[in-house]
Amino acid sequence: MNFGGLISAAPVFDAIAWFDPIRIGSTSLLASASTADNAPFIFAGILASLVVIYLASTIGGEVCARLNLPPVLGQLIGGLVVGISALHLLVFPEGGGDSSNSLLMSFLEATAGLSVDGVTTTFQIDSEVISVLSEIGVVILLFEIGLESNLQELLRVGTQATIVAIVGVVTPFLFGTLGLITLFHISTVPAIFAGAALTATSIGITAKVLAELNYLNRSEGQIIIGAAVLDDVLGIIVLAVVASLAKTGEVELTNIIYLILSSVVFLVGAILIGRWLNPYFVQLVDALRTRGQLLIPALIFAFVLSYIATVIKLEAILGAFTAGLVLAETQKCRELKSQVVPIADILVPIFFVVVSAKTDIGVLNPAVPANREGLIMASFLIVVAILGKVVTGFTVFGQEKVNRLAIGVGMIPRGEVGLVFAGIGSATGVLPPALDAAIIVMVIVTTFIAPPLLQVVFQRSPEQNLPQPEAIASSPESR
Amino acid sequence: MNFGGLISAAPVFDAIAWFDPIRIGSTSLLASASTADNAPFIFAGILASLVVIYLASTIGGEVCARLNLPPVLGQLIGGLVVGISALHLLVFPEGGGDSSNSLLMSFLEATAGLSVDGVTTTFQIDSEVISVLSEIGVVILLFEIGLESNLQELLRVGTQATIVAIVGVVTPFLFGTLGLITLFHISTVPAIFAGAALTATSIGITAKVLAELNYLNRSEGQIIIGAAVLDDVLGIIVLAVVASLAKTGEVELTNIIYLILSSVVFLVGAILIGRWLNPYFVQLVDALRTRGQLLIPALIFAFVLSYIATVIKLEAILGAFTAGLVLAETQKCRELKSQVVPIADILVPIFFVVVSAKTDIGVLNPAVPANREGLIMASFLIVVAILGKVVTGFTVFGQEKVNRLAIGVGMIPRGEVGLVFAGIGSATGVLPPALDAAIIVMVIVTTFIAPPLLQVVFQRSPEQNLPQPEAIASSPESR
Repeated sequence: MNFGGLISAAPVFDAIAWFDPIRIGSTSLLASASTADNAPFIFAGILASLVVIYLASTIGGEVCARLNLPPVLGQLIGGLVVGISALHLLVFPEGGGDSSNSLLMSFLEATAGLSVDGVTTTFQIDSEVISVLSEIGVVILLFEIGLESNLQELLRVGTQATIVAIVGVVTPFLFGTLGLITLFHISTVPAIFAGAALTATSIGITAKVLAELNYLNRSEGQIIIGAAVLDDVLGIIVLAVVASLAKTGEVELTNIIYLILSSVVFLVGAILIGRWLNPYFVQLVDALRTRGQLLIPALIFAFVLSYIATVIKLEAILGAFTAGLVLAETQKCRELKSQVVPIADILVPIFFVVVSAKTDIGVLNPAVPANREGLIMASFLIVVAILGKVVTGFTVFGQEKVNRLAIGVGMIPRGEVGLVFAGIGSATGVLPPALDAAIIVMVIVTTFIAPPLLQVVFQRSPEQNLPQPEAIASSPESR
Repeated sequence: MNFGGLISAAPVFDAIAWFDPIRIGSTSLLASASTADNAPFIFAGILASLVVIYLASTIGGEVCARLNLPPVLGQLIGGLVVGISALHLLVFPEGGGDSSNSLLMSFLEATAGLSVDGVTTTFQIDSEVISVLSEIGVVILLFEIGLESNLQELLRVGTQATIVAIVGVVTPFLFGTLGLITLFHISTVPAIFAGAALTATSIGITAKVLAELNYLNRSEGQIIIGAAVLDDVLGIIVLAVVASLAKTGEVELTNIIYLILSSVVFLVGAILIGRWLNPYFVQLVDALRTRGQLLIPALIFAFVLSYIATVIKLEAILGAFTAGLVLAETQKCRELKSQVVPIADILVPIFFVVVSAKTDIGVLNPAVPANREGLIMASFLIVVAILGKVVTGFTVFGQEKVNRLAIGVGMIPRGEVGLVFAGIGSATGVLPPALDAAIIVMVIVTTFIAPPLLQVVFQRSPEQNLPQPEAIASSPESR
């Protein structure tokens, strides 16, 4: 519906009736004129973005479910389709988009009468809001994964997970760095940078696939989750080392020690304090009488831990995962899980669609000559990235019936963490453009290859009785 | 925990390790340097804001529940305590706050190491995000209210609701305007403006109280909801009339006709098309296999209607309410309601806390001489605002056992709609400061007085068997 004609014929009404009841406080309306004027457009843009995200994630997920592929792969592909790589419906300033190439903003201009003046502000604010919603989405995802995890089991497989994590960081880092130096004659610092980009597993994608395959609570699942969490911590430490190396040429030891110490103190401290707090949590929840009496205290706990994790330079998702892990031990866990399901249902798809909407797969096009050097290096990085993680499964000892291949494959997706390395590398000028593109290609391929691969290796597992993916996707257990 | 010392000792690490995996796309990291640098602070600020909001809403709600008052009153008071009126934890640019008087930003500076340079950007973006979350909150609230409502019952009481709405708009408008002119010697245009501010009922607050008292599905509840919805439409029309009157001195008839027509077409069209779509909706939901197969299509429907409502200059909440009303008629309603509950639990409190956090009750202080003239006028406006709505209940005919007083009292809260009038009035310079303040005081008083008053008049209702508030607040029926 295009009411543009009607609307622009009435400028007075336009300026005044476009109000927003929430955004206007008790003092001057025009105190923040630029945003107040655009308030209804900003919210209309959010509504339209959410509709695009949900359509992309649902259609993508459903298609993959019918092809016996993990739905999360479909959500990622849905994100590619609506994002910077194809339809330009959902683009972000950080992903190379701007208001002029955002199809959604054009749609708002056409349908909602958004003015050319307002489009920049609206685009920027909407991008920020959707980015924050996607961050809340991954926080809720890891909170839910934490709730589904089993601390006892995680501690039982702790040694194996630690070895998997360390081997999975050291192997690709060493082979990647040395290979780039010897085979591609890259100089040391950029080679180390690219090697570092090969280290960290994307916990979000792996955990989601494991949940979809109903493997989260088995030994393999818990080893992978444990290793992925440690990987995340190790990745942050590696990033700190490499970044200071790139900038000053030497490693700032105090930072590294600080990071390691704060990680250990945080993870151990949160679990110990959390377990001690658990009975009080149950008492508190039982005493509350208003709506959300279980959910709100649980979210306060998760957000406080996420905040602390962010503040000590770890990641918010580590805090959320730990909160879930601790609350999984209370008697309220079952009820809490069932309440978190709908929240995750509406927030988690935002994360996966946004991550891939921001990823430009244009670097994969071999018809562009500039891409070719990068693609050759990318092939090498992909092989190292996959083999470097697959070997980790075979370091697992003392677990006879475990699917070793599945553990290794579970560590493959690099996801957003690898993109951070590429981003910092290109920002500091350390990485030559071809290598920068190669890292991005490696991240895309490992991220998209892992979900179907994981499904294949779990299906081959002889001693496991794997339910049909369709049944899982909509069954209550997988929630 | 203050890691400020440790962090500032390591500037290199600061700049680089403060990354955010989601926010960084495949192109240049520093493309949007100002936001990318602040990304972890922005998210930390959101986490901290949400914790503050949930603490305020839970503590406020629980205290009120124990005093036998509606919990939503406690959430509003909680918002006052953390907002611009008291603690300054949650302040907004539109509410007269800025980054320098935001206690939350100071907290981020102290704990998260947010720099003085980054504080303005972080404050602005966080304010926008929390505002949008609160708007999503009221959209979800009205969607849930729609799901709880009964279209048949609403149509059955339609005539009564229409009369209640019209009387409730005309009475306070006439008496308010004439009273200001004769008693306070206010000139015509500002008097009309203030009279208009007396018209529109805040559907959110009333609906929430009705749900809390378990009265949403009774005749009184449905008359109030129906009248409040029509009130919202009438309020938008009155605003358009008054605004063009204030600006050009005459009424733009084409706009008014356009608004009336589009409102009618939207409400009737959405309900008719929705009812026709309902069987297909059920078929679609049954065919979907991935998570969120009921919730996501329902939200897409709600967001699309909200978008259309915004685009035709109505309000998003009207679209969400209509979507809920239509989906309430499908066989999936029960399941959908139970899934919407946790989402409403975490989003709706944001709305109530934010609305009152933005309200400065400083205008209520009689010790400030400048407030006195406003307070005297406010007393007059409050009397008109209350009596002008209370009379509406007695226009209800053909309903013998109905609680007429409750219907009138249910229409009392002006909430955010009244603030819009005050905001526009002060922005266009039409309203003298004292009258502007008087409108704000009227809004505050009617909003805060309505929930306890509504509870009292429903408890007096002899033929109703009212459950105890505590039982309602946490009982599944009230959800």
